[in-house]
Amino acid sequence: MQTLSKAKTSLISSLSVKKYRQEHNLFVAEGHKIISEVINSGLCIKYLVYNEDREIPSLSGDFEVLVTDEAGMKKISNLKNPPPVLAVIEIPERKPEYINLKGKLTMCVDDLQDPGNLGTIIRICDWFGIENLICSNKSADVYNPKVIQATMGAFLRVNVFYENLVEFLPEYRKVTGHNCFGTFLEGENIYQTDLPESALFVLGNEGNGISPEVAEFLDSKILIPPYSQAGNHAESLNISVAAAVVCSEFRRRGPA
Amino acid sequence: MQTLSKAKTSLISSLSVKKYRQEHNLFVAEGHKIISEVINSGLCIKYLVYNEDREIPSLSGDFEVLVTDEAGMKKISNLKNPPPVLAVIEIPERKPEYINLKGKLTMCVDDLQDPGNLGTIIRICDWFGIENLICSNKSADVYNPKVIQATMGAFLRVNVFYENLVEFLPEYRKVTGHNCFGTFLEGENIYQTDLPESALFVLGNEGNGISPEVAEFLDSKILIPPYSQAGNHAESLNISVAAAVVCSEFRRRGPA
Repeated sequence: MQTLSKAKTSLISSLSVKKYRQEHNLFVAEGHKIISEVINSGLCIKYLVYNEDREIPSLSGDFEVLVTDEAGMKKISNLKNPPPVLAVIEIPERKPEYINLKGKLTMCVDDLQDPGNLGTIIRICDWFGIENLICSNKSADVYNPKVIQATMGAFLRVNVFYENLVEFLPEYRKVTGHNCFGTFLEGENIYQTDLPESALFVLGNEGNGISPEVAEFLDSKILIPPYSQAGNHAESLNISVAAAVVCSEFRRRGPA
Repeated sequence: MQTLSKAKTSLISSLSVKKYRQEHNLFVAEGHKIISEVINSGLCIKYLVYNEDREIPSLSGDFEVLVTDEAGMKKISNLKNPPPVLAVIEIPERKPEYINLKGKLTMCVDDLQDPGNLGTIIRICDWFGIENLICSNKSADVYNPKVIQATMGAFLRVNVFYENLVEFLPEYRKVTGHNCFGTFLEGENIYQTDLPESALFVLGNEGNGISPEVAEFLDSKILIPPYSQAGNHAESLNISVAAAVVCSEFRRRGPA
């Protein structure tokens, strides 16, 4: 077991920034539970860093083990209270195979900005059995440490792809034959809309909703109707709340 | 117009702590939009503090206006980028009238801890026309500045009450005659449950769910079923995501 070097400390702490994650093709996950899941998932771990002052159940696998102390852990951790173990993991290459999206429900986000929202949406996909999440290229990065920790392991069970939606959506429709839905503030009441089992639905940006360029490729605009009696209600639902209601509506109609 | 004194600076900045909010019976809201809504709502504003270095549309009403500079604003603000105006508002006295809950859908939270979740849940109530939210006494405080800002004004349209649920629930059932529902990880599939238009439903604590003492007063346990095919999915849904799905299920069955 080697001691964590200065060079590796800088490398690992740089991975909180997207530019460096992309340059090194690496990201960070922290804590025993999530790292055990990473090992089981078959993702490739490059370094495992332990805090030698603290005891934890050992983790085994094909990776380089490094040790450091409490202060060293603080330098590389993204959390207020660093857990005793941190993993540096290789970013897997991911390209969606259109044909694998056939016969499935797929979620798509158009420039989703907030890492916390992305984390919550990945957990929602996981719960509702949505295997694939397509993000526009400008959306928050799934390998942002805030997203990784917020998903509580769900990022291992949901494939997250980054695509140019204006190119992706027409090809998706051609190959799968499925319809594309999007949520809008004016649209058809979702409770009265026919929702097929296999389809794609798009959620928009937190402030601006779905962009006009993306809206062009949608077959239906749907709305989660407000029920406030006075018509005097919140201007919009939080995007992850909208995602949950849409998933629930698609899923409850399919075979349980 | 008076300049913000040292004494009032300490008073206002102390209001980020629950103990001092209760002692002074005051809370803080920041930003022009939310404060205009507070003025329209009829809540009583005690002080309005302007940043004299910045221009904003004026707000009028029956309150003491104080001015300060950028540095003074930073001392009293709870936000990273303090907006040019901050209001100190009297906490209204609130006690639920059981009879006013009759014929309505009411939400209840059992020791909800996270202020962000409480803010999101208040926005969900607002969207779905749920006028009353009953919180157990140990739940996060609606007057926490994080909650106030996160609700984006929805706290003005949703009545939030703090009660001892073990006393509240039996009295609620007796007076209204409505059933009480709760979300559990083992329960009846919500999509196959008869949900009445008027009822109360309880959401639990983020880590521990609904406490056994509260569960005793519930008529039905309901579950949002996971749809992951492998049975290998997230252990739970985020509490505000669960709140959204439950609201959606109650509301879609009622008259639109």
